[in-house]
Amino acid sequence: MSSSIDTKCVNAIRVLAADAVQKAKSGHPGLPLGSAAMAYELWAHHMHHNPKDTSWPNRDRFILSGGHGSTLLYSLLHLFGYGLTAEDLAGFRQEGSLTPGHPEYRHTRGVEATTGPLGAGMTMAVGMAIAEAHMASIFNKEGYPVVDHYTYALGGDGCMMEGITSEAFSLAGTLKLGKLIILYDSNKITIEGSTDIAFTEDTTKRFQSYGFQTLTVEDGNDLDAIAAAIEEAKADTTRPTLITVKTIIGYGCPAKQGTPAAHGEPLGEENVAALKENLGFPADKFFYAPEDVYAHYNELIEEQQTAYNEWNKLFDDYCKAYPEMKALWDQYHDADIAKKLIDDDAFWAYEDAPAATRNLSGTMVNRIKDYLPNFMGGSADLAPSNKTNMTGAGDFSAEDRKGRNMHFGVREIAMGGIANGMALYGGLKPYVATFFVFSDYVKPMIRLASIMGLPISYVFSHDSIGVGEDGPTHEPVEQLAALRALPNFHIFRPADATETAAAWYSAITSKTTPTALALTRQNLPQLAGSSKEALKGAYVIADSDKAEPDAIIIASGSEVNVSIDAKALLAKEGIDVRVVSMPCMDIFEEQSEEYKASVLPLSCRKRVGVEALCSFGWDRYIGLDGKLITMDQFGESAPYSVLFKKYGFTAENIAATVKSLF
Amino acid sequence: MSSSIDTKCVNAIRVLAADAVQKAKSGHPGLPLGSAAMAYELWAHHMHHNPKDTSWPNRDRFILSGGHGSTLLYSLLHLFGYGLTAEDLAGFRQEGSLTPGHPEYRHTRGVEATTGPLGAGMTMAVGMAIAEAHMASIFNKEGYPVVDHYTYALGGDGCMMEGITSEAFSLAGTLKLGKLIILYDSNKITIEGSTDIAFTEDTTKRFQSYGFQTLTVEDGNDLDAIAAAIEEAKADTTRPTLITVKTIIGYGCPAKQGTPAAHGEPLGEENVAALKENLGFPADKFFYAPEDVYAHYNELIEEQQTAYNEWNKLFDDYCKAYPEMKALWDQYHDADIAKKLIDDDAFWAYEDAPAATRNLSGTMVNRIKDYLPNFMGGSADLAPSNKTNMTGAGDFSAEDRKGRNMHFGVREIAMGGIANGMALYGGLKPYVATFFVFSDYVKPMIRLASIMGLPISYVFSHDSIGVGEDGPTHEPVEQLAALRALPNFHIFRPADATETAAAWYSAITSKTTPTALALTRQNLPQLAGSSKEALKGAYVIADSDKAEPDAIIIASGSEVNVSIDAKALLAKEGIDVRVVSMPCMDIFEEQSEEYKASVLPLSCRKRVGVEALCSFGWDRYIGLDGKLITMDQFGESAPYSVLFKKYGFTAENIAATVKSLF
Repeated sequence: MSSSIDTKCVNAIRVLAADAVQKAKSGHPGLPLGSAAMAYELWAHHMHHNPKDTSWPNRDRFILSGGHGSTLLYSLLHLFGYGLTAEDLAGFRQEGSLTPGHPEYRHTRGVEATTGPLGAGMTMAVGMAIAEAHMASIFNKEGYPVVDHYTYALGGDGCMMEGITSEAFSLAGTLKLGKLIILYDSNKITIEGSTDIAFTEDTTKRFQSYGFQTLTVEDGNDLDAIAAAIEEAKADTTRPTLITVKTIIGYGCPAKQGTPAAHGEPLGEENVAALKENLGFPADKFFYAPEDVYAHYNELIEEQQTAYNEWNKLFDDYCKAYPEMKALWDQYHDADIAKKLIDDDAFWAYEDAPAATRNLSGTMVNRIKDYLPNFMGGSADLAPSNKTNMTGAGDFSAEDRKGRNMHFGVREIAMGGIANGMALYGGLKPYVATFFVFSDYVKPMIRLASIMGLPISYVFSHDSIGVGEDGPTHEPVEQLAALRALPNFHIFRPADATETAAAWYSAITSKTTPTALALTRQNLPQLAGSSKEALKGAYVIADSDKAEPDAIIIASGSEVNVSIDAKALLAKEGIDVRVVSMPCMDIFEEQSEEYKASVLPLSCRKRVGVEALCSFGWDRYIGLDGKLITMDQFGESAPYSVLFKKYGFTAENIAATVKSLF
Repeated sequence: MSSSIDTKCVNAIRVLAADAVQKAKSGHPGLPLGSAAMAYELWAHHMHHNPKDTSWPNRDRFILSGGHGSTLLYSLLHLFGYGLTAEDLAGFRQEGSLTPGHPEYRHTRGVEATTGPLGAGMTMAVGMAIAEAHMASIFNKEGYPVVDHYTYALGGDGCMMEGITSEAFSLAGTLKLGKLIILYDSNKITIEGSTDIAFTEDTTKRFQSYGFQTLTVEDGNDLDAIAAAIEEAKADTTRPTLITVKTIIGYGCPAKQGTPAAHGEPLGEENVAALKENLGFPADKFFYAPEDVYAHYNELIEEQQTAYNEWNKLFDDYCKAYPEMKALWDQYHDADIAKKLIDDDAFWAYEDAPAATRNLSGTMVNRIKDYLPNFMGGSADLAPSNKTNMTGAGDFSAEDRKGRNMHFGVREIAMGGIANGMALYGGLKPYVATFFVFSDYVKPMIRLASIMGLPISYVFSHDSIGVGEDGPTHEPVEQLAALRALPNFHIFRPADATETAAAWYSAITSKTTPTALALTRQNLPQLAGSSKEALKGAYVIADSDKAEPDAIIIASGSEVNVSIDAKALLAKEGIDVRVVSMPCMDIFEEQSEEYKASVLPLSCRKRVGVEALCSFGWDRYIGLDGKLITMDQFGESAPYSVLFKKYGFTAENIAATVKSLF
């Protein structure tokens, strides 16, 4: 049963959160005040975690999906001894502080995921629960449950409204992720007012339709009821659980609680004082909690130590009993393992015959499957088109947790969020796939992967008007520019087998940068000049005989071979051009100025860029004096060869364009 | 009761669809074969439509949300006399044909929306149902229900899995859109296999949780059961209805029906022959339906004429009885009405005081509200931040259909799709809003708006690191590049009140191009040089005194005023620069070469671009010899003024950068 010290500990969270937001003159007090009790109860009495070892593999995972309520998490991290100080709390939302506006992974110790975009955190929790189930199936042995923990996510009405969570939870239900527990801070208030204006659905019933266990806590401050619900959630390991906790937004602040005004702005100095008085805290002290509160949190931390020590003993014994599993465990957790493939001829091998790069990628996926046991992923119901199925690797399902092929369903954005969760979990190398044009749907989660530095691989097939008959809704035009513009992201558009292998090599050896592959539907020839130089992002694939070329043609993917053909046409007319293959603009930008100038000498201004997607961004290499052959309008429905000819992606047109510069 | 001719008419749809896919050697026969019966029954006996007048305002709307099954729609349009010939069907997926791979609005008569991306069509149907309810409340008078019809959408498992529909249907339930009827082609098969692998939710229960009436037809070929369900759906006008129709994918093709192989590839010549024999059609005839089938369809068309004629009579009488309503109707349907605002001083008026462009936009939204009665929209739960509320215009809700402020909830992508539906409906000028960084979520629907040529307005506030404290998850970096790269889309980033007014003027006078406004959170000064020249996309806002400037600074939005300050600093050192304000790169690109060269003379290569978002795309104006001050990494959480200084968006740094070119 909860005691008065528990209540005091809960209120300490509220007071610290309110102070932080007030001092910053910016932030969201509503969620921390409303959900302090459930968060406290979870962290204090149910969740296994160790503030001294935040990378403990078997820790329970907790994601604050409502990331705007970051002061809830920061207060917890402070009080539970994760090393966040009262000064850190006072630096909330200030330059360089450990307490940014939204929780940031890799930035603040104990933060499991960067959150803020609503629903993303819950979806990443689904990904973590998938990872836990898979890792457990691979590693656990009779008597040695070395992977055996829960994943919790906490969020509010916004997280429930976003479509990403509908996708993710529907899949979670199908997959029977019994160790996923969602705490729903249900306060019926959003920024524009009561949820009645836009959100009257029966959320409990909706989750039942997905196959969740659903529990409700009527009073969000009732620690015993919260405790009982969490234990009931944990007890049912055959179904994920939704715990709806009815709360009052901004609880404790007399003037604002229960209103939209509590959501996203400081309470005001007087209201913070009133909050403190109301909760029995001194109004004139800031970032303050009494000694007995800190003492109690310390006791709670000490209690955590037991489970931690027990697991370490278990894991030590396991490693002795199963040295081959320990070796496998190390293999899963070794980020450098793929590097050796750079000199592995089998990895780079290919047949000298025309092939679609999506098919070549499919070959690579199956090679990587054998090299990296922790390579796991799939498609949003397009595996046969994306060529992402790993032969013989099984399908991850409620019945087969060992399966490495994921079936995400037609759910692109949740797929992206789940991949983030799988990557955050540790030990897995996730990849996901869809048509390139639908990368738009995945983009919000790709952005989070880039911000968090997660080395996820994205397979985007059907990469241009080469899609052909499916027409403009399925033909990417601007997607390549959009992803090239994204910081900390690499997108490759390989021209043949060697470049496809290079793209995959780059993807699976990346440590903090996500990588996408834009792949053709149609066949391409293998190119004599292609090489591992593709790993530099751009390189000379067919050079001029002159010290300075007469002109330079720069192309990527399916336009490289026609550019090489154009070079041959021009040679007949005495024009000696260099052809540069540019499979990855992002990585080329990371090269030295010397290398860049060696590929694209500044003195040569006769430059033609060729790419069957939009021109945006190409001028960096073309300048004010060159020309572009690109696709600056939506495509159309027709066989791809008709479209390539119609829009000028032919050797003849490229040659003519080069000549027009003379 | 249905008769044998009905069955024959249904099978004609199947045979035509199978022939089209087979001849194209590409396409999706599964959906048309499986759902032919429900589509026939709906179009033949329940839906009010007139093949001779596809712009009849009171027609029932039908959207094929599973757009890959386009041959279903094309067969219907052919058989119901919409002017699509057998030759058109035979040209399926070929260059220039009226039968592209996915249905295209404005391209094929009778197609109400471009579909293909799953779930989008159903969401657009929600938007159409909202438009119908609103228009009815505005225009209907006692005894004159001039707006009174249903909206239907047909789609499959994929449409149900996509998060966009969860968002849209949850809102549809809240709004009690009783005249929205969803036909769910439930065949339990997706591309990767049985829906069991990824989609086991109880969809009926899920829709009940939203507040839908739910009906089930156990046999998708039972025309009477389909008829009864549709009538029951129509009878309940207080709740939207989901009709789950259990079907067999690829029905009628013995070798493929009920399997994923029926979904997305031609059946094969032998299987098409077997299909025809199985359905009692001659196997050796192609694109053929018997005379009695055409005769029956003709009868059905004639029957449609009655409702059409009755409505025209009703509308004529209405116009006589309520001439002021007729005038209002014409106003709603006049796309040129906003053009006169170009010379309306009240529209362009502003106070000469610092202001955030989001606030200036809020002023414009409220002005437009008064000028255009059909201006209707809102935000994804961020109206107080986006400044999109129209004062005194009411909230659209189940109780108040006249309200013009929409509350979309935290549902960005559905908001975008709903806006598309509202714009497609006719008569309304929709706008929607969210934070600029979350334009990523809206993007797939923005793309559809651009493809369809819908003049929707998007208000994207919080447009750069100017967001400040909310940090990297909320600070757009690459979003501006992503939307600039999109064909047929205009995005403005105005620098002050005049440019904000220009952006809005451009948005509301656009006929076939959607327009976005990227707006600051922070205050900006009013600029002496700003003018309606902003409508040209870029213009000289502060010129050099020299015939040719020493250098050119190009900037947009919040960086224009600091660029003008930099000019003053440089002047003190004898450097005389031109400052170009570039609020809309897309529109500048549409100007004549003469105008472009007058703003950015090719001879002047000392150019500096300044924009607090990523550099991608800027080189078009900077060339190989200029420099950029941009934001090519994710932002951070800190007060915006700290960030602007840290990342160099100051007059001092701009001036120093210009000097470095000398």
